[in-house]
Amino acid sequence: MKAIGFKTSLPITEKESFIEFETQKPVPGARDLLVKIDAISVNPVDFKIRQNSAKDTVLETPKIIGWDAVGIVQAVGEKVTLFEVGDLVYYAGDITKQGSNAEYQIIDERIVGRKPKSLSIEEAAVIPLTALTAWEILFDRIRISAERDKGKSILIIGGAGGVGSIAIQLAKKIAGLTVIATASRPETIDWCKKQGADYVVDHKNLISAVREAGFEHVDFILDFVDTNAYWDIMTELIKPQGHIASITGSSNPIALNSLKSKSVSFSWELMYTRSMFQTDDMIEQHHILNKVADLLDEGILKTTLNQTLNGLTVENLKKAHELLESGRTIGKIAIKF
Amino acid sequence: MKAIGFKTSLPITEKESFIEFETQKPVPGARDLLVKIDAISVNPVDFKIRQNSAKDTVLETPKIIGWDAVGIVQAVGEKVTLFEVGDLVYYAGDITKQGSNAEYQIIDERIVGRKPKSLSIEEAAVIPLTALTAWEILFDRIRISAERDKGKSILIIGGAGGVGSIAIQLAKKIAGLTVIATASRPETIDWCKKQGADYVVDHKNLISAVREAGFEHVDFILDFVDTNAYWDIMTELIKPQGHIASITGSSNPIALNSLKSKSVSFSWELMYTRSMFQTDDMIEQHHILNKVADLLDEGILKTTLNQTLNGLTVENLKKAHELLESGRTIGKIAIKF
Repeated sequence: MKAIGFKTSLPITEKESFIEFETQKPVPGARDLLVKIDAISVNPVDFKIRQNSAKDTVLETPKIIGWDAVGIVQAVGEKVTLFEVGDLVYYAGDITKQGSNAEYQIIDERIVGRKPKSLSIEEAAVIPLTALTAWEILFDRIRISAERDKGKSILIIGGAGGVGSIAIQLAKKIAGLTVIATASRPETIDWCKKQGADYVVDHKNLISAVREAGFEHVDFILDFVDTNAYWDIMTELIKPQGHIASITGSSNPIALNSLKSKSVSFSWELMYTRSMFQTDDMIEQHHILNKVADLLDEGILKTTLNQTLNGLTVENLKKAHELLESGRTIGKIAIKF
Repeated sequence: MKAIGFKTSLPITEKESFIEFETQKPVPGARDLLVKIDAISVNPVDFKIRQNSAKDTVLETPKIIGWDAVGIVQAVGEKVTLFEVGDLVYYAGDITKQGSNAEYQIIDERIVGRKPKSLSIEEAAVIPLTALTAWEILFDRIRISAERDKGKSILIIGGAGGVGSIAIQLAKKIAGLTVIATASRPETIDWCKKQGADYVVDHKNLISAVREAGFEHVDFILDFVDTNAYWDIMTELIKPQGHIASITGSSNPIALNSLKSKSVSFSWELMYTRSMFQTDDMIEQHHILNKVADLLDEGILKTTLNQTLNGLTVENLKKAHELLESGRTIGKIAIKF
């Protein structure tokens, strides 16, 4: 099969930052599906791994990355019960396994959902990784319940990005929260409002911007930009007994004690945790993806697709990574095979 | 009225580390109760405040500390609706106000509960601060729900202390968790088992002790000893998607990133947050104290009283602080007036 990968970590402008190659079609294990991929999406984790996973080394066989995918089930392992050959599926993959920048991929059925029927393949391909991340951060990490938390406020730092866009929708439409999102350009402000944000504030002078919007403190904060850089601001803006959550990681130790007098909680969310540790509740990702598919088909959620490239080519992957690396993409980019 | 306080922070062995004095009986504000105190308890926060709140200074009037109390309502403010004169009450107070080491105290009705009927005044006096702390950490910070979390495991570091003792009971009997508590002396091990701990492990070599008890990881960890000292151990022992919570504060920055790959959450709990920030849900402490009173009267929870001193005297307060400062007390100490 055709695949695109890299043997060494290079700047995206370098000729061999991505290379096309032929490799064996993978064989499904007991609970795996073999999927023929129709469309993929790119996420910031893709370029972080491309930039860092083969630094100062040259791999023997190219590494295939990419996680979001939509495709059709072509074969199933002997213990598969959730899907059949011919099913249309979507998923965000497993960071410990081979990625989706290829014609075929194997994937554990427990982290696969049915493709939303009403969406095109490119509209569906951009959903899994960001929707799983946003769903898990809201409902599994913070444990927001619509019953307990309806009407509370949430600040989403990085509202116009891929995770930010679907997080706005879930926070507003499923959790019933009042959503304040950060964005600073006319086109990103407009995008956040279209996702359902009640207020859009500039990330520069964030404290006064949130206060001007009418919020002394907010109940929840989602950080999709930089935990260290926003720590003091989040400490100031979070309500007593509030909850901050982030996906960014932090390169430096954190003054955690600054949250103590307010009895504040902090959560990390990594969408790969369940598959990486093969947790007992790994199948929850199957259920989340199916719930999201239902919500998309019911028109309650909508795709965050903003740009489509055509063809599984080195050129398209380079272009997609370059766009993401700029930090200025709005919503999501799909690549349709 | 008679009160006991201090004008300067001194070692407990110093003559004037506590002094007895006469002061005006306080007058209740609109939502306050005036309580004639019958018994109090001491907590580690008491000696921390005695040691630090009047360092290198001499106050004009002595500072009255102490928070747990049981007493009888003697007068009420004009907006009080939850209690009447003559009611027996218990409460853990408000760190921004005058404490309970005195004959009378005023206290906002929203943080007061009815005294458990079946308990003596000294048995009841030891409950409020620790029960509120343990309840809030389990159900408000971690958001444990019996439905979602029944049968999961919790490690309680510092099982035989005041908060540890009642946390073991709540985790076991109300949350339905499997409880592993730390203790190292025969008498503390025995005490933890009496509170309901399923396993008691030595805090020295904690990782191997927990593993030997049969747990590779635990779902929840409560730290009642030292966040910085236990950080690496907690990072290792916590289950992916688990939740760590602490009441200790941390003097140094924390390597928060070490929890990221597991998508772990961390919460601070400070029982004073609600009253200090006058949160909208401050009355929740009234409800928690009443629920705990019901559970004590039903025999589901039991008092953690282990030692009673008789009389509101300088000598007894010094003795109680000295015992707590040793770090070796088991359960709780009450002072009966």
